Amino acid sequence: MAKLIECIPNFSEGRRSEVIEALVSEAQSVPGVILLDHSSDESHNRSVFTMVGSPEGIGEAAFRLAKKAAETIDLTKHTGEHPRMGAVDVVPFVPIQDVTMEDCITLSKQVAERVNSELGIPVFLYEESASAPERKNLAAIRKGQFEGMPEKLKDPKWQPDYGKAEIHPTAGVVAIGARAPLVAFNINLSTSDIQIANNIAKIIRESSGGLKYVKSIGVMLEDRNIAQVSINMCNYVKTPLYRVFELVRAEAARYGVQIIGSEIIGLTPMNALVDSAEYYLKLENFDSKVQVLENHLL
Amino acid sequence: MAKLIECIPNFSEGRRSEVIEALVSEAQSVPGVILLDHSSDESHNRSVFTMVGSPEGIGEAAFRLAKKAAETIDLTKHTGEHPRMGAVDVVPFVPIQDVTMEDCITLSKQVAERVNSELGIPVFLYEESASAPERKNLAAIRKGQFEGMPEKLKDPKWQPDYGKAEIHPTAGVVAIGARAPLVAFNINLSTSDIQIANNIAKIIRESSGGLKYVKSIGVMLEDRNIAQVSINMCNYVKTPLYRVFELVRAEAARYGVQIIGSEIIGLTPMNALVDSAEYYLKLENFDSKVQVLENHLL
Repeated sequence: MAKLIECIPNFSEGRRSEVIEALVSEAQSVPGVILLDHSSDESHNRSVFTMVGSPEGIGEAAFRLAKKAAETIDLTKHTGEHPRMGAVDVVPFVPIQDVTMEDCITLSKQVAERVNSELGIPVFLYEESASAPERKNLAAIRKGQFEGMPEKLKDPKWQPDYGKAEIHPTAGVVAIGARAPLVAFNINLSTSDIQIANNIAKIIRESSGGLKYVKSIGVMLEDRNIAQVSINMCNYVKTPLYRVFELVRAEAARYGVQIIGSEIIGLTPMNALVDSAEYYLKLENFDSKVQVLENHLL
Repeated sequence: MAKLIECIPNFSEGRRSEVIEALVSEAQSVPGVILLDHSSDESHNRSVFTMVGSPEGIGEAAFRLAKKAAETIDLTKHTGEHPRMGAVDVVPFVPIQDVTMEDCITLSKQVAERVNSELGIPVFLYEESASAPERKNLAAIRKGQFEGMPEKLKDPKWQPDYGKAEIHPTAGVVAIGARAPLVAFNINLSTSDIQIANNIAKIIRESSGGLKYVKSIGVMLEDRNIAQVSINMCNYVKTPLYRVFELVRAEAARYGVQIIGSEIIGLTPMNALVDSAEYYLKLENFDSKVQVLENHLL
């Protein structure tokens, strides 16, 4: 079983196709690294890449991408709806197989050191790699955005983890860190009352006292005229999908509302689903590493 | 996504370690083929190998193993509890990824042709590869065993699909064919009454009018003093695990009995579990080929 780490770098460019193509080429340039997906949003003027590979390979690919982004993206000329502070804005590393969170933290620090020393971009470590609790949250680090960073970095509280208190003139600053895999999991309700979805979202999310590692809001699916509990599962190992599903089911029942369906947006690690099958089928002593055939082929 | 076929050859040798080791070496000799598991049973005097690989690789490995078995195993000297008719007794090919059953049937015929022409062993095609309905079932082909084969092959109804009506003097005959993946799935009941497990097994299995692709018997787990419905899922795509689980749950309820757990013995393809997660989580429009991260790495 090979060691596998996922990396999902976000770039502040979603319009110029030649720049996006150059970044795609860079992502594909490292042996053992696979670019699973990339999507660009013109109004956000932002692109998100999803890559997976060996620890060494994925670190090298992340560095090459940061370098190419710094060469091709000028934040002084950037406009877009999405908040941003750097040409490469954020670089998360996610443990997928046979690696620990600690391995990803170590890798994130190696890449951070290299991005700073070779490219001259100041780096904040975030999420599991953060050097202080107030630096875990990307939004807190990015507050003020590119334009506010020169001033923000004068604050002793906001010294970068790598580099001097001075932004890169065109590439800004970047956040690099390790985090658990995120699964975007939405649950559709048999009601058009958004307030019911809002109430359930509030009950299940961590920030208002619900389940740890769960972020959630109510949204309206206008085309289907149904309310949805839209969820980010920030650690499906510690808070699995079935647990959220069953809690939503139980809370919806109070309103006489049922779950009519759910969806996973984008990619999910296999184990997020295998875990739920194990729960519902009451599997005893199941070891997915050994017993799932595909795990022997990775 | 690579084409992958599983092969689970059964050999009539479970005692002589030097023979088993020679077969293991043979299985490991083809690039692109992985020996996932092998187990030997002394009282059965039989070994079962589980390999997976590309269509070309797995066909080559199956042939090399048949050759090695013919060279090292002498059926005239074989004793054991398990019925058998050949040195290599049965060779199933199973579609795992990006291959059709038709591909596996084609491969089984290629290997059968080669085993006969190069090794002089008569071959019966069985299961999905069978040339007639009465040849689908391995037990029907094997009836009479090694000792009865010379006589059986005189019957015009039992001419081999490849080769003359004459057994290989020491390696006997072999069945080769394609079949769907088999998942061994057992369901434990909250009762020590074996009759309840027997009744449920009879209701769910195909042979007595239940679900297609399901074989089932009731067994007693003496150490836990509980009855179990022991199931072979012979096509988990067409009859998925959750459907059997829910039917057993419903039938057990008539006796006031609950399902207290289940188990999967040995290996299962990922999709046998992903399918069940999809059902219980009511996932809409989920495409495991695209959305399960690991599928991009195989």
